[in-house]
Amino acid sequence: MNAPSPSAPVFPFELIRADLEVVEAAIRDQARAFDPAVEGYVAYVCQASGKRIRPALALMAGGATGGKTEEHTRLSVILEMVHIASLVHDDIMDGAATRRGLPTAAAKWGSALSVLLGDALFARALELATEFDDTHVCRSIARASRDVCSGEILQTQRRFDLNLSVPDYLRMIEMKTAALFAAASGLGARLNGVPEGVEKALFSYGMKLGTVYQIYDDCLDLVGDEAKAGKTLRTDLAKGKLTLPVLFLLMEATDAQKQKLNKMLLKGEPMDTGILAGIADYEGAIEKAVRYAQDMLAEARAELVCLAASPYKAAFEQIADYLHDLLGQCRAA
Amino acid sequence: MNAPSPSAPVFPFELIRADLEVVEAAIRDQARAFDPAVEGYVAYVCQASGKRIRPALALMAGGATGGKTEEHTRLSVILEMVHIASLVHDDIMDGAATRRGLPTAAAKWGSALSVLLGDALFARALELATEFDDTHVCRSIARASRDVCSGEILQTQRRFDLNLSVPDYLRMIEMKTAALFAAASGLGARLNGVPEGVEKALFSYGMKLGTVYQIYDDCLDLVGDEAKAGKTLRTDLAKGKLTLPVLFLLMEATDAQKQKLNKMLLKGEPMDTGILAGIADYEGAIEKAVRYAQDMLAEARAELVCLAASPYKAAFEQIADYLHDLLGQCRAA
Repeated sequence: MNAPSPSAPVFPFELIRADLEVVEAAIRDQARAFDPAVEGYVAYVCQASGKRIRPALALMAGGATGGKTEEHTRLSVILEMVHIASLVHDDIMDGAATRRGLPTAAAKWGSALSVLLGDALFARALELATEFDDTHVCRSIARASRDVCSGEILQTQRRFDLNLSVPDYLRMIEMKTAALFAAASGLGARLNGVPEGVEKALFSYGMKLGTVYQIYDDCLDLVGDEAKAGKTLRTDLAKGKLTLPVLFLLMEATDAQKQKLNKMLLKGEPMDTGILAGIADYEGAIEKAVRYAQDMLAEARAELVCLAASPYKAAFEQIADYLHDLLGQCRAA
Repeated sequence: MNAPSPSAPVFPFELIRADLEVVEAAIRDQARAFDPAVEGYVAYVCQASGKRIRPALALMAGGATGGKTEEHTRLSVILEMVHIASLVHDDIMDGAATRRGLPTAAAKWGSALSVLLGDALFARALELATEFDDTHVCRSIARASRDVCSGEILQTQRRFDLNLSVPDYLRMIEMKTAALFAAASGLGARLNGVPEGVEKALFSYGMKLGTVYQIYDDCLDLVGDEAKAGKTLRTDLAKGKLTLPVLFLLMEATDAQKQKLNKMLLKGEPMDTGILAGIADYEGAIEKAVRYAQDMLAEARAELVCLAASPYKAAFEQIADYLHDLLGQCRAA
């Protein structure tokens, strides 16, 4: 197979590069809002600069609907802090030693401190959210945050559960991942007082983009190249996480094949894709997940019709196109 | 020694018994706000009925300043949910097997799910807080929640640290315990549109009461009777938690005694009070902590002068008097 192997996404955020740096500085400033004894821990987990997708979406929504304001920076900081808090807690649960090349908080200071650190970040983010005059903004942020937690609970609970349905899976990743994307783009528009239809359309764009982003991440875990992805892959199945391609595969599997997979999952045996490839149509299942995600991107793109032409609208389209191309590189290895 | 040994507090909440039942039902209802798959976990941790001190203070503050409303019930539910969330996370860190006679969430479902469950409760509480028209209320709840987490971080961080000063300790328990008490009584008054001075006075009453409550709990750990306290005692020192009586003891200890204690703490050896009793004036240190807390109760009581006479004002006084008497029973065994 000569297709390039899919890599970690590097989103086309050039248009808002400078604004993202302002957000970055504002996130650093937030560490200082904590008790001096706590500040160092907060600064550490905030520094490991991620892709800042949620801030980018909030800023772009601002740019596309009348202009980015100080409120868009605040929204960006809040959503990223909620995201960082959830990562701090994820790393405890996964026993992860590093994240983006740095030791995780859990590895450095143990899980007790990391539980509290995540809590403190989360509480501070929601405290900042109360500073918006529009209480709907604060409420939406709190709801999205609850969705992130509930989605993670569902995922933890449904590990190793071969009865997980595709709609269950989609609801789970909408809560776990897409809710914050949707809050970013939807509220980014709302802050500019757009008509309700525009806010809803951008909310929906974010929800769809977030869902696709998670499906891409799931496919990457199965077929990606570790060096290019910049992280350990092939871990979802060993952890009992059933993702979209695997669910499609299960739909095609015979009862005997399902039983075999079930036994292996329950034993907690590490599972490589070679084993999957022996069950039903593995390649076809990856392809089906890719197509599902690409169709959803087309829907996300269609939501943008309510926006007047602008470099920001174009950037929203580019992000969808970029993920579309990345998905196209996902082929069973 | 013939003094009765101090027991778990049973606060005189008769006046608001019926209102507390309404709060109890409202907390149960909150479980239904979650995804059906998450609801059962939430219902479980909310059922283990605690003393509901925070709701009681919020309701009493309402009663004392113009009447309890539906908003006081909401405030009560929110503060209790934040408290429950913090207990769920505490139990993970302490590896606690039971709480109030029931298995903890951590013991039943493991720490991964419990981290998320605490997060979800916390996020839901702050989501509910956004429903107040007065954004100051929501902001104060978020700030108090952050204080709870920061206080717990400080405590975790300062374990086994013999340099912990009395002011450091007091700041820590103000954040960890008293902040939610203060939010309960202060905001309970604010919801009735009281003058700022009254809100501040009741906030201060809650802060002092909460501080004393924690000092009592710390003394109980040293000198209480397990059967009467209804929980495992003598665990603070083994965990490296230095509390007010121990800090007073350290102030009196010679350098040699401090070094001995330090070595024992660092070895993580379980420490019984017999060892403490051999260092400087153990009995005097307990006595000093008790007197410190009783003086603070007098200050808390003085804050009530701004309230018109009412059964609720009398109930606030009774609670202070009740804790005063309980403290009086704390004598080195």
